[in-house]
Amino acid sequence: MMEIASYAKPYLASLQPYVPGEQPQGGDWIKLNTNELPYAPPATVREAIAGEAARLHRYPEPLSGRLREALAERFCLETGNVIIGNGSDDLLNLLVRAFGGRGRRTAETFPSYSLYPVLTGIDGGEMVSFPLGPAFELPEEAVSASGADLLFLTSPNAPSGIRFANEALRRIARSIKGIVVIDEAYVEFASGSALSLLETEANIVITRTFSKAYGLAGLRVGYALASSPVIATLDRIRDSYNVNRLSQAGALAALAAGDWYVDKVTEIRNRRDRVRATLTGFGWKVFPSESNFLLMAPARKGFPAGAEAAASLEGWLRERRVLVRRFSANPLTAPYLRVTVGTQEEMDTFLKEADEWNQRV
Amino acid sequence: MMEIASYAKPYLASLQPYVPGEQPQGGDWIKLNTNELPYAPPATVREAIAGEAARLHRYPEPLSGRLREALAERFCLETGNVIIGNGSDDLLNLLVRAFGGRGRRTAETFPSYSLYPVLTGIDGGEMVSFPLGPAFELPEEAVSASGADLLFLTSPNAPSGIRFANEALRRIARSIKGIVVIDEAYVEFASGSALSLLETEANIVITRTFSKAYGLAGLRVGYALASSPVIATLDRIRDSYNVNRLSQAGALAALAAGDWYVDKVTEIRNRRDRVRATLTGFGWKVFPSESNFLLMAPARKGFPAGAEAAASLEGWLRERRVLVRRFSANPLTAPYLRVTVGTQEEMDTFLKEADEWNQRV
Repeated sequence: MMEIASYAKPYLASLQPYVPGEQPQGGDWIKLNTNELPYAPPATVREAIAGEAARLHRYPEPLSGRLREALAERFCLETGNVIIGNGSDDLLNLLVRAFGGRGRRTAETFPSYSLYPVLTGIDGGEMVSFPLGPAFELPEEAVSASGADLLFLTSPNAPSGIRFANEALRRIARSIKGIVVIDEAYVEFASGSALSLLETEANIVITRTFSKAYGLAGLRVGYALASSPVIATLDRIRDSYNVNRLSQAGALAALAAGDWYVDKVTEIRNRRDRVRATLTGFGWKVFPSESNFLLMAPARKGFPAGAEAAASLEGWLRERRVLVRRFSANPLTAPYLRVTVGTQEEMDTFLKEADEWNQRV
Repeated sequence: MMEIASYAKPYLASLQPYVPGEQPQGGDWIKLNTNELPYAPPATVREAIAGEAARLHRYPEPLSGRLREALAERFCLETGNVIIGNGSDDLLNLLVRAFGGRGRRTAETFPSYSLYPVLTGIDGGEMVSFPLGPAFELPEEAVSASGADLLFLTSPNAPSGIRFANEALRRIARSIKGIVVIDEAYVEFASGSALSLLETEANIVITRTFSKAYGLAGLRVGYALASSPVIATLDRIRDSYNVNRLSQAGALAALAAGDWYVDKVTEIRNRRDRVRATLTGFGWKVFPSESNFLLMAPARKGFPAGAEAAASLEGWLRERRVLVRRFSANPLTAPYLRVTVGTQEEMDTFLKEADEWNQRV
């Protein structure tokens, strides 16, 4: 039997698959590990989905045309500047298949979304990683000189939560000839975006998602905004029916429910800043965040910030049914835990348990 | 701007993208062009979806584990023999990426599902096509000698509707060392399946879908059954969240509503055979079908069977708001139209209009 598996393309043998965050289904977990919105969708979104369920015997509209139109209108773009994916992961994959991967110079900064090198590896390519600075600063000079055919930048960055300056992004886009993907999965929680760069930089692609601020992680809808030749290229290799009927209907309804989301996002941002103040009060290093999560380096008397302290707090919280995310694979990220900003009640519990860990001797 | 598009991988420039069947959204079309079930999902499926919509702020379970378990149980397999896709197209794509495409010998019989060569081309490979016989017979000898790394066989075949004999499939699987994909998208309408071949042939992969007999084309759920090393290989390159929450819930509910589907499928099969008898009575060549569609070569006095007659009838029907599928690109298929078996009322209209075309002088 093993012969069969070894019949796959040889470069897949050494591939390290992507490891998604834990997704316990049910149970009494406080789930602060995958940056979801802690609120169920509003009634209008659920009703749109229930209504569309009566039409499921028919194939979806292949282009997700109404959703493209709604997004184009929102961002003052043409529909030819928009493409919809089965989550933004779908679009990141298409970007690698079209512009990166095998035989191409594909680059990222590190740490960032660990899916990029996996997608590159599946295509038979190798990822070039440029480390962020010790305070997660963008290594502008190195990236600009990278000669990348395809460059991924996450802004606001994950896991740091820091947004890169548009002027730096513009200089990078002008320095390299290739495609610059600015992954704005968390942008709705930020104080600005790279959107205006699309006006002048034809090689910039902005990817976004309904999984985070729109609270539809379970629906799988993402989109990309770019110059029309780039979108047309992605459309040529996109699965014709990549976004199902319910996803199209649900995302459209979410866009129409704008005020509901503005309220929730404002609530999360305010709570994020309060939680950061509390954690900083513990004496921990916590990065300022333009996202819906915080990156923190736990430490207490006799237990300095570092990989062991992070592992200790993660285990402590897990025993108390609180899930956060740890990135132990790399020395740059090992001292940190990433905690999603959940409901007030969830954050009260998290802070209480974290404080107890902090006060142990 | 065009410079940007030309920055894509060079082999994508010559790619002929897949052209999905027309999917008019709304209007008063009688839609017999993409082999959908003509019935809306049963209440239990719609309710399962509406219920799950309240959990959309959470990521889906990455493995679609409950659906794998339900399918494994149904087919007396292990869960390690099952993988779920965003439509079976998702799994066909993964099969090409793992076992076919660039640097590999990827083969199909022709005509069949026109997506196979597109997926191969997106991966930078070339498809080797073995023509079916004049009555769409399987070219067993040529295929067995193909040395294919990856071979696609559609059974029941599309667009002919003919199912290939298991003994021939077994001999082919034993002759070539590569992976043999038996695409059973229409198998629920057939008198048998290749399922039993999985017991002895570790290189066979069976792909299936909820889009046809389960009437969930708009939900995008497909699955593959194969030996566990093959499934594990596909899982390594699968998108972690390829199947959304609503799709998992809807497909599970559909499996649980077995009797409803048995009734509908029986109804479609019986109607298919009656419609075939009527069309044969027109003097047309109509292939016996083990699917939910019929392939027919329209002809009338002074207008012999051929590409022109097929185009004429297709246009005639379109003017009367009836959509069927024509395959004009190849001489082997150009004389034919494929018509999906819809409701009794839809087929009555189709037959009435077809009869009027037939009786013109």
